[in-house]
Amino acid sequence: MTKWVYDFGEGSRDMRELLGGKGAGIAEMTRILGLDVVPAGFTITTEACVAYMRANRTPPPDLEEQVDAALARLEQLAGKRFADPRDPLLLSVRSGARESMPGMLDTVLNLGLNDDSIAGLVARTGDERFAWDCYRRLVQMFGNVVRGIAGERFEDEIAEIKRERGAKLDTDLDAEALKELTARFRSLYDFPADPREQLLQAIRAVFDSWVGERAVQYRRINRIPDDWGTAVNVQQMVFGNLGEGSCSGVAFSRDELSGSPEPSGDFLPAAQGEDVVSGVRTPLDLSELSEWMPEVADRLKAILRQLERHYQDMQDTEFTVQEGRLYMLQTRSAKRPAQAAVRFAVDAVEEGLLDKAQAMATIDAGSLDALLHPSFDPAADYEVIARGVAASPGAAKGTIVFTAQEAVDRAADGEKVILVRPFTEADDVAGFHAAVGILTSEGGKASHAALVARGMGRPAVTGAADLDIDLHAGEVHVDGRVLHRGDRIAIDGSAGAVTTDDVPLVEAHVDERFETVLRWADELRQIGVRANADTPVDADRAHRFHAEGIGLCRTEHMFMAADRQPKMRAMIMADDEAGRRAALDELLPLQQGDFEGLFEAMVGFPVTIRLLDPPLHEFLPDRFELHEQIVRARLQNSPELEELEHQLERMRSLEETNPMLGTRGVRLGVIHPEIYEMQVRAIARAALVVRRRTERAPKLEIMIPLVAYERELELVRARVVAVSEEEGLTYGADFIVGTMIELPRACLIAGRIAHHAEFFSFGTNDLTQCGLGFSRDDIEGRIVPRYVEEKILSGSPFATIDEPGIGALVQMACDRGRRERPDLELGVCGEHGGDPDSIRFFHRAGLDYVSCSPFRVPIARVAAAQAAIANPRESEEGFAKTPMSPDLVPG
Amino acid sequence: MTKWVYDFGEGSRDMRELLGGKGAGIAEMTRILGLDVVPAGFTITTEACVAYMRANRTPPPDLEEQVDAALARLEQLAGKRFADPRDPLLLSVRSGARESMPGMLDTVLNLGLNDDSIAGLVARTGDERFAWDCYRRLVQMFGNVVRGIAGERFEDEIAEIKRERGAKLDTDLDAEALKELTARFRSLYDFPADPREQLLQAIRAVFDSWVGERAVQYRRINRIPDDWGTAVNVQQMVFGNLGEGSCSGVAFSRDELSGSPEPSGDFLPAAQGEDVVSGVRTPLDLSELSEWMPEVADRLKAILRQLERHYQDMQDTEFTVQEGRLYMLQTRSAKRPAQAAVRFAVDAVEEGLLDKAQAMATIDAGSLDALLHPSFDPAADYEVIARGVAASPGAAKGTIVFTAQEAVDRAADGEKVILVRPFTEADDVAGFHAAVGILTSEGGKASHAALVARGMGRPAVTGAADLDIDLHAGEVHVDGRVLHRGDRIAIDGSAGAVTTDDVPLVEAHVDERFETVLRWADELRQIGVRANADTPVDADRAHRFHAEGIGLCRTEHMFMAADRQPKMRAMIMADDEAGRRAALDELLPLQQGDFEGLFEAMVGFPVTIRLLDPPLHEFLPDRFELHEQIVRARLQNSPELEELEHQLERMRSLEETNPMLGTRGVRLGVIHPEIYEMQVRAIARAALVVRRRTERAPKLEIMIPLVAYERELELVRARVVAVSEEEGLTYGADFIVGTMIELPRACLIAGRIAHHAEFFSFGTNDLTQCGLGFSRDDIEGRIVPRYVEEKILSGSPFATIDEPGIGALVQMACDRGRRERPDLELGVCGEHGGDPDSIRFFHRAGLDYVSCSPFRVPIARVAAAQAAIANPRESEEGFAKTPMSPDLVPG
Repeated sequence: MTKWVYDFGEGSRDMRELLGGKGAGIAEMTRILGLDVVPAGFTITTEACVAYMRANRTPPPDLEEQVDAALARLEQLAGKRFADPRDPLLLSVRSGARESMPGMLDTVLNLGLNDDSIAGLVARTGDERFAWDCYRRLVQMFGNVVRGIAGERFEDEIAEIKRERGAKLDTDLDAEALKELTARFRSLYDFPADPREQLLQAIRAVFDSWVGERAVQYRRINRIPDDWGTAVNVQQMVFGNLGEGSCSGVAFSRDELSGSPEPSGDFLPAAQGEDVVSGVRTPLDLSELSEWMPEVADRLKAILRQLERHYQDMQDTEFTVQEGRLYMLQTRSAKRPAQAAVRFAVDAVEEGLLDKAQAMATIDAGSLDALLHPSFDPAADYEVIARGVAASPGAAKGTIVFTAQEAVDRAADGEKVILVRPFTEADDVAGFHAAVGILTSEGGKASHAALVARGMGRPAVTGAADLDIDLHAGEVHVDGRVLHRGDRIAIDGSAGAVTTDDVPLVEAHVDERFETVLRWADELRQIGVRANADTPVDADRAHRFHAEGIGLCRTEHMFMAADRQPKMRAMIMADDEAGRRAALDELLPLQQGDFEGLFEAMVGFPVTIRLLDPPLHEFLPDRFELHEQIVRARLQNSPELEELEHQLERMRSLEETNPMLGTRGVRLGVIHPEIYEMQVRAIARAALVVRRRTERAPKLEIMIPLVAYERELELVRARVVAVSEEEGLTYGADFIVGTMIELPRACLIAGRIAHHAEFFSFGTNDLTQCGLGFSRDDIEGRIVPRYVEEKILSGSPFATIDEPGIGALVQMACDRGRRERPDLELGVCGEHGGDPDSIRFFHRAGLDYVSCSPFRVPIARVAAAQAAIANPRESEEGFAKTPMSPDLVPG
Repeated sequence: MTKWVYDFGEGSRDMRELLGGKGAGIAEMTRILGLDVVPAGFTITTEACVAYMRANRTPPPDLEEQVDAALARLEQLAGKRFADPRDPLLLSVRSGARESMPGMLDTVLNLGLNDDSIAGLVARTGDERFAWDCYRRLVQMFGNVVRGIAGERFEDEIAEIKRERGAKLDTDLDAEALKELTARFRSLYDFPADPREQLLQAIRAVFDSWVGERAVQYRRINRIPDDWGTAVNVQQMVFGNLGEGSCSGVAFSRDELSGSPEPSGDFLPAAQGEDVVSGVRTPLDLSELSEWMPEVADRLKAILRQLERHYQDMQDTEFTVQEGRLYMLQTRSAKRPAQAAVRFAVDAVEEGLLDKAQAMATIDAGSLDALLHPSFDPAADYEVIARGVAASPGAAKGTIVFTAQEAVDRAADGEKVILVRPFTEADDVAGFHAAVGILTSEGGKASHAALVARGMGRPAVTGAADLDIDLHAGEVHVDGRVLHRGDRIAIDGSAGAVTTDDVPLVEAHVDERFETVLRWADELRQIGVRANADTPVDADRAHRFHAEGIGLCRTEHMFMAADRQPKMRAMIMADDEAGRRAALDELLPLQQGDFEGLFEAMVGFPVTIRLLDPPLHEFLPDRFELHEQIVRARLQNSPELEELEHQLERMRSLEETNPMLGTRGVRLGVIHPEIYEMQVRAIARAALVVRRRTERAPKLEIMIPLVAYERELELVRARVVAVSEEEGLTYGADFIVGTMIELPRACLIAGRIAHHAEFFSFGTNDLTQCGLGFSRDDIEGRIVPRYVEEKILSGSPFATIDEPGIGALVQMACDRGRRERPDLELGVCGEHGGDPDSIRFFHRAGLDYVSCSPFRVPIARVAAAQAAIANPRESEEGFAKTPMSPDLVPG
């Protein structure tokens, strides 16, 4: 027989999955605080809820029997009988899922009252008004929660009776009025007098609330699986509304916003817990409890400290004081903003409450983003005109521009601009540099706009679908309003909000405590953290965030700047190699200059430079524009027609059906060796210049992208080595050569590839695209949301690595590569390198480092520390592994 | 010390890799025929050649020593000393690679002659003319081969002396003339008199010829690795040019063209072997040898039969008769056209020479294609105006059309047309139906044109890059000539040739012997062979070729026909689900009709139907045309502008950056359930109609494409089952549901997917694209040729499966799927299903069947038999495994 019911005394905090968060918390409290502080009761397991749902909302056959038995034991402990007309034991029935879903699941209080037991309650408490208040609350909650009667029906009755009696507040209603109100409530539906029936129906109602619309939506947003189910906690009622010496409240063991060490919270005298949350009356600050009931307040503080020490984390509790006696109803780890999380961690170590590792584990690494970027003032009042994806954190205000050129022009005049577009493309990158923020109506977290914005640390909101952006007209239509070029707009990329109000921004605040936490993270973590940086400015920022090198420098971004694009286009449009070489000769010194800046910012650290990766046609202008010119030229018999048509032909010949799977990466390197040759010369010359200038050599790691066949790497590596040595670098000492692992085949044959590579860097964006057959540009907006809804995905595989698929490929490549070459350096440079969940995986997989955008570096440092705490690596010698003198395995 | 040299007596046919084909053949002959028939000698190994190349053309240090020792042994066996002035032993030095590379590598004959030894040769043979002929040949060959002097220089001298002496034929030159000629030859370069120097230089020259331009090109075309190297055979000279009783020739153990049992071949009296090949004189037919030297001829026949029995294959030999005595110089398996291969196999079994399995192994399965399609008459004389890729076998003649519509219109008038386009797209499929052949200037073996043409059995030449096709002008420019719409053209898709001559076609000839071979193949093979067929016509053809069912019916091809395209477009362009449903209702009866025809052709066999797979925008017209209309409408202020712009917007919203990785396959099924619903209804209704009509149920296998997540399949399968059952089918009895495995992730989580699938069918085209990151459309033309040149690839991974990468994924999916579900049916339906090399892999991987285009079915049957012979499966119960009553694993 399955055990569906556990007495509070039977459980513990480890049983969260079975008993839910609240059930496990109460059981733990029962164990450490004892029954005089925690009212007795029992928990019906999450498994019972799952069984109920599976059986099409039929409770397991033996559940009632087990509830009856548990109730009997509870009656014995409480020394009262349930609904006893002389001295009734009253019960609360509360939901309690594995993860807190605040306000999403249902609760019924005061169960066990009926026309008989009300008399006993009046007699025992001597407070007729209180007793009838309890009764009317029961009838109201039961009607609303169990029977689904709209809450307003009850509220209307209350308003009506208050009007009739001239009462202002609920508390102005006397016992008689409440009795009348109870009767009116009961006329709204058939309230069951049988207390056992009340209990069983309330339990079912809690089960049902698990699949209620609100709860389902909440789970979707918060990635909580539907098949977890909720537990149900049945507990002896204590009464915060029993006269003047009673109250209900919530208490945090420390300030929940700042993390400062004083407990914080609210309470309401003469109220049940629901009143505190519902906001009907304005609660009092917890500090006032000390004045009002100093002994209770001291006891509460002591308990909070005890719980915090026991749980090794900041606690969020519910308490009730009944006639001067304190009861604890729930405890759980407190959700807290980044600021508070950091402060708690630092204070807890100083207080000796936690050691560094324990303190580190209490921080939600992802939330730290908020500390690194400005945001809308949370206290400000403003109208959100559209919501989109929180694509790149930070907030920004500026005037609307619609093209990269406008952005550049206006920014040159000192104007702060926000680039507003349906979506962005490679062409727009100059606009990203010029703008203070990016807003698009299409695309998700991994759209071009989001990726580039995050890489540059520009705030961005993407996929704000309510915006209808008309580039031709230079207008944005939203909700019946029209915005024009030059109008002011503000975006919060951490919240995905867009407003036209002049909302104040709050600057980022990296305080000393945060630095402390990051220092500890560096002590604790076992993998390195590098940054993806394409420009000297990026590299500088990465250095300031203590990145241990550059894990990815995308050299193509160097070709996007206004002074390079025409040269790059000339190179691509050249009809032959000679033409290409001539254009490349002009690009070389520019690229060399960029590298010099980059190397100087990272002197002494490894710098991984990826040779040209994207398909060439990405650098060309929009074909449609050209096509339009041709149609016009044709209609007007223009003499330019022939040249335009030649251009179009050349562009067509470069276009690809699936550019992501086309002529790019090492394939370009194989078929146009002159491009990589120019890049390697630029790298080598820059390295020598910086060495002369700083007397320290940068540690170069030259990376060949998109390798599928070992021979591709063998060929191109040989050329890279030859050109570098020609320029005066020494292979092994000054530079090493490796590859990006970003194709499934590369993972499968990683052992062979390792023979030609000193390092692997996983390009998990492309690996995800190929492994899942998911084009990021096409899938993230169209398919991912629907797939999350259909429970195929829990979120975008471009945000957090897909462990069973892509993770398995990464693991395979690590294992096979290291088997052939034990000193192979392993890193990741895809977007996943800055995602805490993914970092946990990369740590386990055995990587040496992760690389992410500079602004994610602090997060990655903390996440890497947490990964090491959760799964310490044995006999790890150190993470800053940079094999600069590798055994050069012969080709 | 490495052994670089093997005496003929030491080797055997198993040592092909080390001794080369010729060396191994001579060694084997020496063993079975004895030294009186095979002149003695020794072989320098391929390893020596590899070592020579690796050491930058320096011979291994101990090679000379080993050659000297082997030469000493040879002198002993021959009873003569090398270049002995009294009775010289003369030597030939011949190349001999692992695989025959006819005419690509070098040979030097008559080594050992100089001004001293010539006297001995004259004395021993008593034939002064012969001796001087040998000497001038040596000086000529040595100069040409070893010293690289142009052959014409020598030919010119011969012509000159013939003119001087009034000689007509070489044989008209007397001893004195030849002596004079030798002197003139020697004046062209410094001929080494030292015989050892002659020998060593000749050996090096053969090594060098391995990396000669011709040889490198040949290997590239024939996929022979460069690092195999060639062996060098040093053999005692025998003389076919020693007077009237001598001759040289080649002899096949059977007729090399027809395979009929009489030996065939050519010989030249009084000539050395080189003369037979060089075509200087017209050789005599081997049958004449019987008249001329009946005993020698009988002996040769007996030896040929002996060799054939010993090698269990048809032999291709070289022989020399010196003064009435027969010598065998080489034997190897004969290359033969398909016709001869089939005849030999059947005859050999009838004669008791081979058993069926042995006979089957002698056939080159790929070559059988020639028997299934018409071709240009090999005897015909015609001018090839362009060459392209042999994309789909068969030959065709017709008039040029440039669009599908023209093809349809002209074909309706009974005209035979060839569709000529730069490339083809989904839109053009109607034109494929109408045309007798397809010719494109772009694309390779796996371009759209090639795939569709092969699928329909239409001959096609693709990537004929010399054609400059101007669709606007309706002209083809080629080599200074202009062809117009309506001009006659002919293509041979087996050879990749294009001509404007009226070349006669030879019809396909599937004779009784071929049928016999196919019947044996069916007995021997252990996997099933199905066909990919999309229409009743395809299904009929598949049935005629004895396909055991349909392994892939691509339902989207049903939407391409002229009467469906507008309806399909209406469905796609609909703004909402209601609009889509209305359009789908019109498509349903049409699709049902197609299925009825298909099912009727395949009654009793399994029919695997893939639900809609490609992205919807593939069914839409070209966006550029629409764009052009808009530009015109804008310039002319046309009232249609708004509607056109709405259309463009809808099209843009459907367009994808990488459609191959976009909204297609099961993703469409998830987000637009109504499309699959219509398709399943059409399938179910058709099945019921056919069951009523034929009283037999088709065995339906409904296939969901592009699954990456088990939940996708779970969801869509549930809908498929629900709709099918609603229509009256019984799950398990009437139909099963499975998935196409075509994404790397699906292979990795195949175990989980197997819980929701009764079968897997590998879509190795898409799996190759994703696994390698190779877009077929983009890569095959641009990258593959260059990659073959750079030795990264040996051929297109879309033609033969990439075993280390894609094959490993397939194997993984087979193993993981079967582990979870032992009765899982496994098949392949990608293009690889018709490729013999790939079929060998699929057999080993444990697949139940392969599926290929109908015209490849006979080839697949033979290839499957050969795979079973090479790697027999143990305890295989039978291949026709169609689990129609599977254990239905609960979702």
